[in-house]
Amino acid sequence: MSLTLALDVGGTHMRAAVFHEHENVPIKQRRIRTKGRNESAFTRLLRLIQEITPPNEIIDRVGIAVPGLIDPHQGMIITTPNIPEWSGMPIVSMIEDELGIPTLMGNDANLAALGEWRYGAGQGHQHLLYLTISTGIGGGIIIDDRLLVGSRGLGAELGHVTILPNGPLCSCGQRGHLEALASGTGIATYVAEQLHVGRTSSLEGTPDTKAIALAANHGDSLAQEAFDRAGTYLGLAIANYLTIFNPTIVILGGGVSLTGDLLINPVRKALSSALFSDEYLQDLVITQAALGDDAGLYGALALALSKK
Amino acid sequence: MSLTLALDVGGTHMRAAVFHEHENVPIKQRRIRTKGRNESAFTRLLRLIQEITPPNEIIDRVGIAVPGLIDPHQGMIITTPNIPEWSGMPIVSMIEDELGIPTLMGNDANLAALGEWRYGAGQGHQHLLYLTISTGIGGGIIIDDRLLVGSRGLGAELGHVTILPNGPLCSCGQRGHLEALASGTGIATYVAEQLHVGRTSSLEGTPDTKAIALAANHGDSLAQEAFDRAGTYLGLAIANYLTIFNPTIVILGGGVSLTGDLLINPVRKALSSALFSDEYLQDLVITQAALGDDAGLYGALALALSKK
Repeated sequence: MSLTLALDVGGTHMRAAVFHEHENVPIKQRRIRTKGRNESAFTRLLRLIQEITPPNEIIDRVGIAVPGLIDPHQGMIITTPNIPEWSGMPIVSMIEDELGIPTLMGNDANLAALGEWRYGAGQGHQHLLYLTISTGIGGGIIIDDRLLVGSRGLGAELGHVTILPNGPLCSCGQRGHLEALASGTGIATYVAEQLHVGRTSSLEGTPDTKAIALAANHGDSLAQEAFDRAGTYLGLAIANYLTIFNPTIVILGGGVSLTGDLLINPVRKALSSALFSDEYLQDLVITQAALGDDAGLYGALALALSKK
Repeated sequence: MSLTLALDVGGTHMRAAVFHEHENVPIKQRRIRTKGRNESAFTRLLRLIQEITPPNEIIDRVGIAVPGLIDPHQGMIITTPNIPEWSGMPIVSMIEDELGIPTLMGNDANLAALGEWRYGAGQGHQHLLYLTISTGIGGGIIIDDRLLVGSRGLGAELGHVTILPNGPLCSCGQRGHLEALASGTGIATYVAEQLHVGRTSSLEGTPDTKAIALAANHGDSLAQEAFDRAGTYLGLAIANYLTIFNPTIVILGGGVSLTGDLLINPVRKALSSALFSDEYLQDLVITQAALGDDAGLYGALALALSKK
């Protein structure tokens, strides 16, 4: 029986699932914390793999999703801010050396796009844009049924495009990137700054995105403005991506996208005020992600299965 | 003997060239004005084709480059501002009906990218970004040796992405697009506006890009500022495209790109101030286009030859 192992490593948790060929429901899955005392993240990953591998069965392919800037062709993690010890690590050959199983790696947000395309909200679409909006912003692009990765695999870093020159500071150190404007962090930072300069609001201190969403739904004007601003910049970015890729579907994932209309209404308004032509909106689907936290894991599965 | 007909239709001129199979030098080429008295542009195109077709030889494929928003899958021109009578025209089936020869169509800037990739400055690169900067800004993208066109073929309109929210008015009616900021028109409009509000300069009235470039090279600070501003926004856009596509080469074409360092120095500066990671610049070639005005024609040739 042919088995595939899918791995999704995040800064907080790492997850593993084993799938029979042609099946989308895992026969086994498990989630552990990424960091432990006196044990490296890589040792923990190997232990997770060992625990999940069914006895007397053979896994014949592995797909792994990792966060950060990676070179999937070389199987190398370039930088991964959430697991700094992995920066510069040739993780694919390290796994292959340990297990003796062919392994493919992808960026977690890119693979979440692949997962949504193959198993989730994007099934049947050949041209797809996926954005995940949570603490940061990541994404992925499917063109003609193929995942965009670029020459070294550094492409589709869709949160790190400049949307507002000289705008607010991004987690990466540059200014005015989409992530700095429309992520949960971007929204919370904006509210905190406005409170700091004395804006009137029901909010106090440094509220998180959930508290801001709640206040917005109760009519707080600063909270509403914060979502309006984030949604507008997100809409400008999506308009740019429509102009560049002309997809048939836009899938929004991540915690912040669950705020719904609060974010989506300004997105839709920005789309029509920024697009070169209404033709880009014809038959365009804008929808929520379907796989939630499983998107990366299913993307790792799809990636592993992509190699004959 | 197998012959290919390449056509490149612009707002001012239309050009045709006939090529033998496996040869890059046309056996015959001709250029006429797009518009004539008492004769439609399409009639002129058919006459051009007739004039250039060698007697007693058979053309077995046609490629055509047209400006504007087009649907290459349907062979339909959606809107083409420079030849308004062609908007909504199913030009591919019209040519096929007249000539009985299979015909493929592409957007002129997209095909210029294809031409530079196959025959020009981009040969050997699998991931390429091409931008043409003249009156407007167009471009094209090659990913994994394939031209990006998107679901309906409306993709890669690389001049119509928002770079400065609420920025200057674009030819398309929206604000802050790259074309409005960094095209020849964008540069000239900026200088005219600054002169209008009384800025001191050696320039007067409404100078064109050439006059502004000359003044900049003679030390005029407004003229230098105009190129610096355009190059900075162009650099921000290129940084975004590197982040999205991770190409190995950026090719700049069009009249304004010939101003060289005046435009390229601020581009390079903006790249390092905007990019998420320096990794995108590793081994990246930034170069001038090689085919000049022939890029679209060679792209039409490459397109025609792309179909088995």
